[in-house]
Parts: sequence; structure tokens; C-alpha cells
Amino acid sequence: MAETQGKVITCKAAVAWGPKEPLVIQEICVDPPQKMEVRVKILYTSICHTDLGAWAGVNEAGRAFPRILGHEAVGVVESVGEGVKDVEEGDYVIPTFNGECGECVVCKTESNLCERYKVDPMKSLMVNDGGTRFSTTTNKDGGSSQSQRIYHFLNTSTFTEYTVLDSACLVKIDPNAPLKQMSLLSCGVSTGVGAAWNSANVKEGTTTAVFGLGAVGLAVAEGARARGASRIIGVDANDSKFEKGKLMGVTDFVNPKDLTKPVHERIRELTGGGVDYSFECTGNVDVLREAFLSTRPGWGSTVLVGIYLTPTTLPLHPMELFDGRKITGSVFGGFKAKSQLPNFAQQCMKGVVKLEPFITNELPFEKINDAFQLLRDGKSLRCVLQISKFLKK
Amino acid sequence: MAETQGKVITCKAAVAWGPKEPLVIQEICVDPPQKMEVRVKILYTSICHTDLGAWAGVNEAGRAFPRILGHEAVGVVESVGEGVKDVEEGDYVIPTFNGECGECVVCKTESNLCERYKVDPMKSLMVNDGGTRFSTTTNKDGGSSQSQRIYHFLNTSTFTEYTVLDSACLVKIDPNAPLKQMSLLSCGVSTGVGAAWNSANVKEGTTTAVFGLGAVGLAVAEGARARGASRIIGVDANDSKFEKGKLMGVTDFVNPKDLTKPVHERIRELTGGGVDYSFECTGNVDVLREAFLSTRPGWGSTVLVGIYLTPTTLPLHPMELFDGRKITGSVFGGFKAKSQLPNFAQQCMKGVVKLEPFITNELPFEKINDAFQLLRDGKSLRCVLQISKFLKK
Repeated sequence: MAETQGKVITCKAAVAWGPKEPLVIQEICVDPPQKMEVRVKILYTSICHTDLGAWAGVNEAGRAFPRILGHEAVGVVESVGEGVKDVEEGDYVIPTFNGECGECVVCKTESNLCERYKVDPMKSLMVNDGGTRFSTTTNKDGGSSQSQRIYHFLNTSTFTEYTVLDSACLVKIDPNAPLKQMSLLSCGVSTGVGAAWNSANVKEGTTTAVFGLGAVGLAVAEGARARGASRIIGVDANDSKFEKGKLMGVTDFVNPKDLTKPVHERIRELTGGGVDYSFECTGNVDVLREAFLSTRPGWGSTVLVGIYLTPTTLPLHPMELFDGRKITGSVFGGFKAKSQLPNFAQQCMKGVVKLEPFITNELPFEKINDAFQLLRDGKSLRCVLQISKFLKK
Repeated sequence: MAETQGKVITCKAAVAWGPKEPLVIQEICVDPPQKMEVRVKILYTSICHTDLGAWAGVNEAGRAFPRILGHEAVGVVESVGEGVKDVEEGDYVIPTFNGECGECVVCKTESNLCERYKVDPMKSLMVNDGGTRFSTTTNKDGGSSQSQRIYHFLNTSTFTEYTVLDSACLVKIDPNAPLKQMSLLSCGVSTGVGAAWNSANVKEGTTTAVFGLGAVGLAVAEGARARGASRIIGVDANDSKFEKGKLMGVTDFVNPKDLTKPVHERIRELTGGGVDYSFECTGNVDVLREAFLSTRPGWGSTVLVGIYLTPTTLPLHPMELFDGRKITGSVFGGFKAKSQLPNFAQQCMKGVVKLEPFITNELPFEKINDAFQLLRDGKSLRCVLQISKFLKK
């Protein structure tokens, strides 16, 4: 049993104090886990565009500060709260922003949108008591203050040495897994590969177009490659994405800037009528329309993966849904985290999906603001930060 | 062999000469069928809202006059053109506006949107030679004129004693079928029942909401009832539709005029969170939004059946597609006409689906303008017109 069990832990975290303010690495207090909660020592974390969005305060209702962001990570269980049976101290786990209670009416179906713990960017408090497990007596300038609470983020909050999660929001993994890479399964890679595998169910020999070759889009391509897609067309306005794309199976590149016609017309030319599947990974509704029109009438399927922050509604006419084309949104790649991620992790360990190419940078925890900048500048796919050292149990 | 084979037939037809002008019953000439075409003696025809739309000229590009409208019918083959193997003189057939060539790349899939003969409201000429098989030397005032061509409509044109169709656009049926009722399988009933059976795949014990209780909406209800839906909520602004609805299995009625809240909120209350399936049968985009929001997050499915004539795009935000709700358009109920309609006709003959309640009026062919008026006034579901008498072969 950990010496710290049942006690408040004082540790370091990267705290976001306000929109677009540099994160402050500082001391925080982390309460013990309550009923059905787990306290986790974070080993590695990586940074995703959703962290950038919350940090920039793009979503009015999500402006809960001070806050600990971060949702891609891997860690080791420090202690568990009352009632937690599926993990124990010393287990290696990955947090998931899209939890799975296993008991609600949705969890009983094929859907991964758990009624209680599905992704909710507005959520900043723990379900049990409406409180937080983080607090600090240090203000953002390093001076001391009265104890104040620090908000949670996306069911996870991983930019910290220790975090507390609902047990529904973490997944036990094989202790022999390459831990640094497992961090990517918390969000980006699972979201992309799952969009291809679960949401679209890409079949061998089919054609695919991926709009937006960031980490998620490249993970879609990797998923389609693993499924044996015969053609994977990458669409991005940045030519530098194309070299990386080749590693993930992208066979053709389309840069809209090079065209004098809409992208969908080019893709229809390339494929003799349209691709079987298209994936929209940019969050731009105009790109969404291009992705939709790029698929084959009769059976084409468009999967939305991007996050659409503008109030603009779908630029599609209802009659366009009568052409036999489908359009669906994909959350966390359609993976049920607790049920399906352990198997996906095994497949990654076997090399079915390669994780290594997604890690483009590594930095120490203290350099987290530099890691943010790399992602903002489009210079990294994933920058992994080592937060704590660890011992195998 | 019919005496008329290979010859031009002179017969009566109801010709539409211009938008919203009363149809004129007059003599026309019907050419023999060309390669892969069939000439059919129409026995019964019924009238659908799509006929009204084309008659009113709501669709700019569809304003091809003079034209023979009509697409719901049953008839008997008079003669076949070169190469037609699957029907012969004397066979009972129903025309289909959504044909099935059986050979194109789409016909080889589960989709019913045949590349060559799928529904096309703009089409007014035969594929073979870009011409028409109808002509007349009588102008709309009854005087004589030079021969002029009369346009085709929806692959079918059934408001005539004789018509010519592509063989891909007719379906052979059991000669013992109740012919008058079989007319309804050409469009309305198949479209509604198929939306429930094929497009939504309604399961036993599930909940359903049907928006718009015209013939197609009621056919959706009948299809859901036949599948064992536990609850079928009918939504219509006209209370008089509710009595008829009960015959088709509607269990609950919602009249938006009686509510002080949006319909979807009422439906969510009635069903503890939303229905499993909703069907939009009005062609109104605001109703579409209500139908979408009436389904259960996580797995709800909305099927669009109505025809949306306004240029308004979908009033849905892209993020609303991330709630696990699906939305798809359904053409001809997803039925592949030639492959699947004969079996559906058999099921109707066995009483799995009841056709009789859909026939609310019967009139002689000469009263076709009265039949139009009944449908425009919402006073009929289907008015069947007897066009020709017939002998069993």
C-alpha cells in the first residue's frame, strides 16, 4: 500500500490561470480519491489540439480557471477509492476523456457515448460531490494565497504529477506496453484509427480521403492502411504534411492551393466517381462539404472527426442526403474505452498500428509551454512530456 | 401476340399542358417499345404528392410540358421491345420510378440508387434515343395541330391507357394479386413501409415517431407496426389524421398546435429520453430538426422521407452529429424494385401489411382532376382511378 494512500499529496502541476496565459508549473494539493475514483501518478503526457482550445478559452462555457488541462497520458495507479475493483495500486493505466460506466442504457448498446462519463468539455468538477480534487495555496505569481480550488478538465487533467479520475475514465493496460507510446491512445491515435475501424469500418481494397493531416488525420490514414485500403488520399494545405503521410500509408496528396477546382472534383477524378470513405479532421464546415461531396454517391460515407467551434450549421441540403451518402460524427473513434482499448493497445504492441511516427518531439515537463508552441506552429504531431519517473511493480 | 404489337397505339391519356392547368383527357399516340423497353396497358393508377408537385411546376427544371404525369399504377404488358427477357405480353406489372438495371456498380451493392434508372424528377425523355414515345395531334383546346411530342415523367407516366417504360422500371407481380391495391406499391406504401423496414430497420419493441400522417407517413407507421414497434407516435397538425392513424398502429398522437413546447421535448417526455427512430415525411426543414431531436442520443436514427423543395440547408449543427444520432435519406423506402418488390407484394397479399385502408377514394379516369383536388385538400390518402378494364390471361 502506498504511503500516501488516504492522504493529500503535494506535487507539481502545470496550471492554466487564464485564457492564453502561459501555464505555471507550481505546487498543488491532490486529495485522495473518493468512492469509485482513482488517484494516478502521471508518467507521460502529450498535448492535443483540444488542450490548446481550452487553454485559449475558445469555448465560453469552458472558461473555468485555474484549471489543469491535459487528457493524453499514461500513468500508474497510486491508490483507489471505495468500490473500485477493476484496477489496483501499481496498475498501469491510460486516462480517457470519454469514459465508460458499463451500466447505463447507452453502455449496454454498441455506442460509446456513456450517459454518465462521455466527453463533456463544459465539465470541470467531479461527479461524486461537485467539487475538485485539486487545490493550491500558491497564486499564479508564485506568492501564497488562501487555498483555492483548481478545476478539472475532460474527465482527466493530466498536466500534473498526480491526478484523480473517476474509475470509469481510465483503462488498465499491459505493464509491458511501451508506456510513452501508450499516451497516444488516450486521444489522438485512438480517435483517428477508431474513426477508420469503428465509425467507417473501412474495408480492404477500398478508397479513402482524409481531410487534414494533423495527428488525428494521420491516425485515420494509419487505420485505413492497417485495414488494407487500396488508396488513401491525403488533403492538406501544408505540403510539409505529405512526407509524414507516406509513413502512414497515404498514397496520393491533394493540396487545395494547387487546384483551380474544388477538391471534391479532383478526388472524383482520381477515383472515378468518388471515394468510399472520407474523413473530415479539420473542424471547418467548408471542408466538411468538400469531404461529403468527395464520396461515391450510392454508398459513400463521411465521418466527422474535427471539432466545429463556429455556430455555422451543416452546409448540406437535405436532398443531398438522398444520394445514398452517409454522414456521421465520431467520438473517440467509436471505441468503448474500458472494453475495447486494452485490445487496441495489444494490436499496437503487435505493430498492426505503428505509434512511433506520431511522436515527433520529447520535452521535460518544465518545457510544457514550448510544447504548446510547437503544436500551435504545426511543428509537432505529438510532443511527449515525461512527468514522473516510475518503477515497474 | 397482341394485334397492336409493333404498331402505334392511339388511346386516351390525361395530359398536363402547363403548370396548374387542369389535365386534359385526350387522344394520344403511343409508339411501340424500343430495345429493352416495354409497352404497358395501365389498369389502375393512383395519385401521389409528387404528381401534384410536378403538375404545379414547383421544380423549375421539371417544367416539361405537355407531359403525362403519374407514377403509381398497375398494368399488363402489351408488348416488349428487343432484348426484354424478364416480362412478356400479358404479365401483370407495376411501374417503378426508381428503376434497377441490375448491372451497374450501384446495383451490385445494397443500395437501390441505380446509376442508370434511379429517380430523376428532371428526366422527361427516354434513355434509348433521347426521344418520347408519346405524341399528339390534338392541342389542349381539342383542336388539331401538327404532331407534337409529349414528355415522360419519373420513368413511368401512368395517367394514360398505354405507356412505355424501360424494362428496368417495371416489376412483375403475381397475377392473383389484388390489382387495384398493387398500384400503391409503385410509390407511397413501399416508400413508407420500406423506410421503416429497410432504411431504419425498425426492431421489435422499439419506439418510433412519424412526422406527417399522409399516405407515406401512415405507411411508415404500418411498417413499424408490422415490425412490432411498441410505440408509434404520430405527429400531425391535422387532428383528422389521427383516426386513420390508429388503423396503421399509431399509439400516441401529438398535434404541435396543442403544445406550448417544441414537439421533440414532448416526445422525449413521452418516451423517457427520445424515440429509437423518427421519420420526417413532410418535406419541411423545421420539422426535420424536430424529428432529429426527438430521437434518443446514443443511437437514435432519423430517416428523411419527405421531399425538400426549398433551398434551405440542414438546420443542424455539425456537433449535433456527435451525439450518436444518425440521419439518412430514404428513396423508395430503400427497396430495390425488381429484386425486392415481388416479395413485398407477397407479404402484402398475406396481410403482413394492409393496403386496403390506404385507398380512401375511387373515381373513373375522367375524374382525374377531381382526384387531384381531393389530395390537394387533404381529403384523400389515395384515390385510385380505373383506367382500363382487363382480362386475366
